Amino acid sequence: MRTFSPPFQNPSGSPIRELFKHLGEPGMISLGGGYPASDLFDLRGLQTAATRAWKQPARCLQYGPTDGLPELKDQVARVMLQRGVTVSPEQLLITTGSQQGFDLLLRVLVNPGDVVISEQPAYPAALQALKLQQARIVTVPVDAQGFDVARLAAMLESGEAGRPKLLYTVPTFANPTGATLPRDRRVALVDLALRYGFLIVEDDPYGELRFSGTPLPSLRALADGMGASQEHVVYLGSLSKIVAPGLRVGWMVGPADVIRRCVVAKQTADLCSVPWTQAIAALYLAQGSLADHLLWVTSIYRSKCDTLCDQLKVRLGDAVQFERPEGGLFVWARIDGADASELLKYAIARKVLFVPGKAFFVDHVDPSALRLSFAAPCIAEIMEAASRLASAFKTMSGCHRDGRI
Amino acid sequence: MRTFSPPFQNPSGSPIRELFKHLGEPGMISLGGGYPASDLFDLRGLQTAATRAWKQPARCLQYGPTDGLPELKDQVARVMLQRGVTVSPEQLLITTGSQQGFDLLLRVLVNPGDVVISEQPAYPAALQALKLQQARIVTVPVDAQGFDVARLAAMLESGEAGRPKLLYTVPTFANPTGATLPRDRRVALVDLALRYGFLIVEDDPYGELRFSGTPLPSLRALADGMGASQEHVVYLGSLSKIVAPGLRVGWMVGPADVIRRCVVAKQTADLCSVPWTQAIAALYLAQGSLADHLLWVTSIYRSKCDTLCDQLKVRLGDAVQFERPEGGLFVWARIDGADASELLKYAIARKVLFVPGKAFFVDHVDPSALRLSFAAPCIAEIMEAASRLASAFKTMSGCHRDGRI
Repeated sequence: MRTFSPPFQNPSGSPIRELFKHLGEPGMISLGGGYPASDLFDLRGLQTAATRAWKQPARCLQYGPTDGLPELKDQVARVMLQRGVTVSPEQLLITTGSQQGFDLLLRVLVNPGDVVISEQPAYPAALQALKLQQARIVTVPVDAQGFDVARLAAMLESGEAGRPKLLYTVPTFANPTGATLPRDRRVALVDLALRYGFLIVEDDPYGELRFSGTPLPSLRALADGMGASQEHVVYLGSLSKIVAPGLRVGWMVGPADVIRRCVVAKQTADLCSVPWTQAIAALYLAQGSLADHLLWVTSIYRSKCDTLCDQLKVRLGDAVQFERPEGGLFVWARIDGADASELLKYAIARKVLFVPGKAFFVDHVDPSALRLSFAAPCIAEIMEAASRLASAFKTMSGCHRDGRI
Repeated sequence: MRTFSPPFQNPSGSPIRELFKHLGEPGMISLGGGYPASDLFDLRGLQTAATRAWKQPARCLQYGPTDGLPELKDQVARVMLQRGVTVSPEQLLITTGSQQGFDLLLRVLVNPGDVVISEQPAYPAALQALKLQQARIVTVPVDAQGFDVARLAAMLESGEAGRPKLLYTVPTFANPTGATLPRDRRVALVDLALRYGFLIVEDDPYGELRFSGTPLPSLRALADGMGASQEHVVYLGSLSKIVAPGLRVGWMVGPADVIRRCVVAKQTADLCSVPWTQAIAALYLAQGSLADHLLWVTSIYRSKCDTLCDQLKVRLGDAVQFERPEGGLFVWARIDGADASELLKYAIARKVLFVPGKAFFVDHVDPSALRLSFAAPCIAEIMEAASRLASAFKTMSGCHRDGRI
């Protein structure tokens, strides 16, 4: 009886959130969500910041400016400077998580039917935001080195990619592939944005979680060195994976004309982000707690990642293929001849969760792919999870062989 | 060079936020913003709740469910029960302020060109959200008793109001008029929604701030008693005016099919509201602090409102007309033959701020109207503000008489 707007007539929710109902089952080990480890939060540092924030209670409790508390904008500008990017206040917007930044950007820039390029496989909530905005999503494959920029160049040249307005990518420790774009591809990508006049959305929640290899400049930092092309990158940052998601503190760095319109969109979206957690985040960053915390967290994630990769090899041998990521939260694997969605049923019976790869595709689904997150479980749980996964795979293969399915 | 989506090509920001730059001027007294009084926040009650919330730090710091923390949903359901409304979990969504609730609702329901009815004058951020969604806004005037329901009935009958999908109103202590819709009009309005098949958005941030008169049932509560018509009301609630805006805790009560789609929209909008302030809000409500706090706050707002109304009469006499509100934060006044936007210039020179009425209109602007908020300044400041306003008015009138402008 009720007529919803077209993208909401039969909306599907997040496929990952569908897994949540199994999370509470006793003994379940989850390699599913993209949650950072709760037991690694810097409770002491955050409590210190929270106690200090409360010394100005009215500042925590009253409405704040739509573009963010000035002290948090200052601290984020410092973070960006450490990442090689100089930001002025009118180029910076504090958002309710970086998810909101992407959403606001789509609202101000994308009309129904506009072409938006996305890497694939890609972060599902970005794909979902594009669908709800009724963008025409053109996918470009990701290989072991990330976004296939040469392929994009060919698609732009031939007209196959249309006239894109935006391009979405996680260039460093991508979700779900864990891949990192090498420097030459970064330069080539910024070059294409400049040449074809589209805006790159560089989503960078994981960049500081590096275990190995050499840090690379962000697309935004590279663009700064390539003339006016800083106009062609919007950078999305977040404290969710490096401090805590519950702060809901993200930010967007972009051209002033884009940011100004995103501020207008944010006025009607939520008036302002929570000033209380913004004040805490600003004090946390100001007290210099982040650098030490990152060293510690990264060393633990490195061990967890190594454990997962090693155990997958030990337990599954040549049946599993993956690249070891240099950072982030995810391992993207393919299991020989398996349908990951079917494997998940066997895995759930054995009390282990992962995300079947299809959640990350718009088209050309790779049914054998799966995303494994090593962030939340402890080392012993990761070892057990790999063993259960192998057992699930063997049972499934056995059933298939015996014609039981 | 860059092409923004149509509503963002030349967007105007909030006209009220334009006043902010004068707020910091020394000696300025503001009757401008719709902010609750910072010095009335229940610091002790909130600190108690915050300390208790921190006993489960991972719950504060990790991602939360998109539809809200279950314990907060339980407490909000209790609040709604006290307001005469029974709510099941699938009819309830926690939002980042009630502003987000309205925004999500427009996204899932309104296509460009769809008719949405709004009271007028109306809350500017609601009007702005409608404009950005490219709704066709049809305005219905508000009189001393609020929304002119008889007029709406005639407009629906004649076809002048088109086939509306939604209707927006603040039926209790409206922003900006302070007016409260009497019971017979409430019943008639729900009846129209039922007859013409539109959805009423009942925005109710101020309803608990009653100084005088008899409490009235919400449109949602009335609809419950009118058969299936609870399907025709979405209720927006908020802790912003009764506890603290900085929590950014609002909620939406609506039909389950609407709420389910708003949850999907919220996944891409911000994933979840801040769990930390949600946990604090849940504990604050559970510890029973709100009832006493409301008694105290309401008694102070009553004094402030009385002072403003009395002083306007003393200082401006018959040159000013207004209705005394029975609650809320606002007095809506007209000053004889004055253009309120011009008066504001004289007022700023005398260090007093208000919001000229035109901010609250889409069409048929009443240039002599102004909104005065008594919430934030103290009693002495309100007295001084009225005196300054009268002085600004007299100077302006004198200048006009002398032909100086």
